Amino acid sequence: MARRRQWAPLRRNAPGVHGPMTKYPSPFTVFPVTGIGEISPGDDIAGMIVEAVTGGEIGFEDGDIVVITHKIVSKAEGQIREIPDETTYRQLVEDEAVSIIRRRGDLVIAQTRHGFICANAAVDRSNVERGYAILLPVDPDRSAHRIRILMERQANVSLGVVITDTFGRPWRRGLTDVAIGISGLPSVVDLRGTTDSHGNTLEVTEVAVVDEIAGAADLVMGKATGVPAAVVRGLEFSGDGRVADLIRPPSEDLFR
Amino acid sequence: MARRRQWAPLRRNAPGVHGPMTKYPSPFTVFPVTGIGEISPGDDIAGMIVEAVTGGEIGFEDGDIVVITHKIVSKAEGQIREIPDETTYRQLVEDEAVSIIRRRGDLVIAQTRHGFICANAAVDRSNVERGYAILLPVDPDRSAHRIRILMERQANVSLGVVITDTFGRPWRRGLTDVAIGISGLPSVVDLRGTTDSHGNTLEVTEVAVVDEIAGAADLVMGKATGVPAAVVRGLEFSGDGRVADLIRPPSEDLFR
Repeated sequence: MARRRQWAPLRRNAPGVHGPMTKYPSPFTVFPVTGIGEISPGDDIAGMIVEAVTGGEIGFEDGDIVVITHKIVSKAEGQIREIPDETTYRQLVEDEAVSIIRRRGDLVIAQTRHGFICANAAVDRSNVERGYAILLPVDPDRSAHRIRILMERQANVSLGVVITDTFGRPWRRGLTDVAIGISGLPSVVDLRGTTDSHGNTLEVTEVAVVDEIAGAADLVMGKATGVPAAVVRGLEFSGDGRVADLIRPPSEDLFR
Repeated sequence: MARRRQWAPLRRNAPGVHGPMTKYPSPFTVFPVTGIGEISPGDDIAGMIVEAVTGGEIGFEDGDIVVITHKIVSKAEGQIREIPDETTYRQLVEDEAVSIIRRRGDLVIAQTRHGFICANAAVDRSNVERGYAILLPVDPDRSAHRIRILMERQANVSLGVVITDTFGRPWRRGLTDVAIGISGLPSVVDLRGTTDSHGNTLEVTEVAVVDEIAGAADLVMGKATGVPAAVVRGLEFSGDGRVADLIRPPSEDLFR
């Protein structure tokens, strides 16, 4: 993107914005978390992840970022609906949408009440029993926060949490995972005011690091292999951002 | 994205499409590559990266994926233009655009001749001497291929290459790195036909793994810190995809 220009800048000192990165980068590693079984409403996700991580070879270290696919969060929170037939499913999509952005055949691109713009209002029929669909968590940032606090207490470490979903992109084929809820992390890392190697001031460079973390974790959370979480170790980000801060407001939206 | 439904499917057996992932995932690590100096037109990028990697602690292993920011590729290929003033810069943006998708104030969202839709037709004034701008490589997939072959010969290993740039997204704030050229990798990983843990067939799940790899690498390629490359170790993807395959054709584009 030319000139590193954001389409619209976030406030410079917003609470979710991480300051310039001045430290030299270190390697980081992404571990798949295995051994988490099927999730039912009311299950203690935090406890199950802590058990899987600390009971395995990975363990926890301070600063680890736990990336969790929203599927298990939604299931634990009871965000499952029965869809006996196609009509019920279609109606559920319409109900979950606060606005329909585009329609083509069966495909609906809709905005959810969280502000996400994605296919079928994020109503998902994969990785759930036949005849059921999974919705997003009601407040994914809050879910991330709750899970983080519970995991930190139980494991006695400082963690970040990213809850993910898989979205399409308007001009690129193939899906990527993005963050839909975060806790203990910045929503963006702000490089504004820093200079590049030529002394040019980088005017606006806000990197959506949580989306890059979500995508990185997806590389080990193969969708059909029962790996609903990952641990990212070696990145040093801290902040109290919310994914809600990453939603582009309609006034800045050139493509709705 | 509900039902894991791609907005439009790629051909199932297209050459760039990696088959279902059946293997259990392993951890992977992303290493920053340091010690690559300033790049001038004609420089041997491949040789410089091999020297930096093999001369440091990382070394190369078979299957490593080398992620390279397009800046140094473009510089080596002479894709630099003098822009003495703002008017020249604006004209360069117009010249690089094959079509203007949106305009707001100084901001131009344009399609490049590669098919990428991004701000200012990817004409970039950061990380280059004052008064100059960097364009994209003429054919980034070909650049990736050339660099891969040269590196493989020199280091005697089998590698993948991803060339990246930083793009905005229409509905999410903050930038992320995406792949603009690849070699030795699949453009997408196709999970169609595999079943999830409930025995549901995943109808269409095409993951743009190269974009997820680009974003992961960006987490160590801090934009102002002089780290123009990264080595990703531990992912097992192979294929002969092209980023060109990831461009959504206008006929499928709901948002142009």
